[in-house]
Amino acid sequence: MTVQQHFADALLAAIDRHAAPICVGLDPVLDRLPADLAPKPGASRDVAARAIRDFSIHVLDAIAGVAPAVKPQSACFERFGAPGLAALEEVCRAARERGLIVILDVKRGDIGVTADHYAHAAFSPDACHAHAATVSPYLGLDTLDPWLAPAYRDRGLFVLVRTSNPASDTLQSLPTCPDNTPYAHALATLLAKRAGEHLGSRGFSSLGAVVAATKPSDAAALRALMPRQIFLVPGFGAQGGDADSVRNLFLPSGHGAVITASRSVLYPTSSAEPRWRNSVREAAQEFAQTIRNVASR
Amino acid sequence: MTVQQHFADALLAAIDRHAAPICVGLDPVLDRLPADLAPKPGASRDVAARAIRDFSIHVLDAIAGVAPAVKPQSACFERFGAPGLAALEEVCRAARERGLIVILDVKRGDIGVTADHYAHAAFSPDACHAHAATVSPYLGLDTLDPWLAPAYRDRGLFVLVRTSNPASDTLQSLPTCPDNTPYAHALATLLAKRAGEHLGSRGFSSLGAVVAATKPSDAAALRALMPRQIFLVPGFGAQGGDADSVRNLFLPSGHGAVITASRSVLYPTSSAEPRWRNSVREAAQEFAQTIRNVASR
Repeated sequence: MTVQQHFADALLAAIDRHAAPICVGLDPVLDRLPADLAPKPGASRDVAARAIRDFSIHVLDAIAGVAPAVKPQSACFERFGAPGLAALEEVCRAARERGLIVILDVKRGDIGVTADHYAHAAFSPDACHAHAATVSPYLGLDTLDPWLAPAYRDRGLFVLVRTSNPASDTLQSLPTCPDNTPYAHALATLLAKRAGEHLGSRGFSSLGAVVAATKPSDAAALRALMPRQIFLVPGFGAQGGDADSVRNLFLPSGHGAVITASRSVLYPTSSAEPRWRNSVREAAQEFAQTIRNVASR
Repeated sequence: MTVQQHFADALLAAIDRHAAPICVGLDPVLDRLPADLAPKPGASRDVAARAIRDFSIHVLDAIAGVAPAVKPQSACFERFGAPGLAALEEVCRAARERGLIVILDVKRGDIGVTADHYAHAAFSPDACHAHAATVSPYLGLDTLDPWLAPAYRDRGLFVLVRTSNPASDTLQSLPTCPDNTPYAHALATLLAKRAGEHLGSRGFSSLGAVVAATKPSDAAALRALMPRQIFLVPGFGAQGGDADSVRNLFLPSGHGAVITASRSVLYPTSSAEPRWRNSVREAAQEFAQTIRNVASR
């Protein structure tokens, strides 16, 4: 990805090269690390952070060439405080060095100057240097402005619209006036308008949306409301989403969605399996094949 | 504050001791640091992080005994990556050592296991060890569960309900069916129910709400919907909120709100003023007196 390539163009090109619209979620947790990397119980934060860093980099090596993108979960690293954040920065840079598109899952959402700090932490070359980040829309769409500043014109955003957790319905499906439009759909309409201001050469916006695989009833409606936005789709695999539930999140062209799996790729075998690196690669290949079939129909 | 004291009880006791329901927002930015602490242009992240740490700790010394609580803005520290997070952890611990209630402004919001990581990063004694944190409700109220786990029964949460930025109206005031209830009020009703499960001995919940000073038209309605919740109120001072706009956020008893000011206390003079520490203390005292008068009417 050259420095000033439009994010959507870069992501779509990477997907085409791999013939797989997938993203591996990097959610490392201590108690699922392979036995050969797991620190002793009671290890310090420094030791724990190094272990999740090492595991993550082995995963990057295993999935490079198979998946076009990776989504590090910031919380898994922040759990270990400052050493954890140092590990996250290293992992993001290692992913970029391996040619992966880095979508940093931070779900930040704050007003003006504060959002600018968060954008800097996610995007700056001396920090995580991510290609894209997830953000939360609760405060209002003006809070996206610092992330969409000219300095970041080669970066992307995925705004939370429909999430995979069971209770998300309570708020995201709340009917709004006058016609009972679910809240998330009203947000999608506003977002689509903003997204139209940030289109790349293939007609897709650098302002994407998070739309979960576990809410298939919303898929067609949200797809229609946001035709130029790339959907980042969590919830596949361990969270219950399957091929049928993600099919409608793609456009008829087979583009427009990136399906994410985390646990099913990171932990395909027991932690005692010595050949776990091969298993991770095979799990990523199987996931890629599954989604390839869905996208091409 | 003893380890297992209910958060709302501890906060109200601290407010009573200071006779001032205020909180100082700790939003340090490099370009406003006093001249005697400002690093040279182009300083490394380590040097910058140490400068904002030192400034923050001087502010803590200046406001200790005047303000019961402090609200460090995580983004201001995260901007400097891992060294910034190390500085934030030091500042939070320094605030606790000085007897201040620490409300960590992180606005996190994520599903189950991920929320657990964020709660650990905010609350764990070997990390920020905050007394409370701000959280975003977009994903649904089930995402609060990890923060309300038994291990954190002496901690508090402030859930974003009504924020101070201009465009917050677009989404937070969206009318919901069947009776045009603004979205934020529908959220408040759900939140009040959860809050009732976490009451302290004085009848206030450890599950509070962020309600901005800049939306006075909502104040009375939100106060009525959430009678047992403590409001954390940003937007006073630099953002435009004044005494009139916060009056209705207090209950008739004079309790139930904590008013926050940041820039007006942190930067009361030009950065060249050598006696800036005294000025910070005086600005905090003036702020305390203003809000004391509002709360007592």
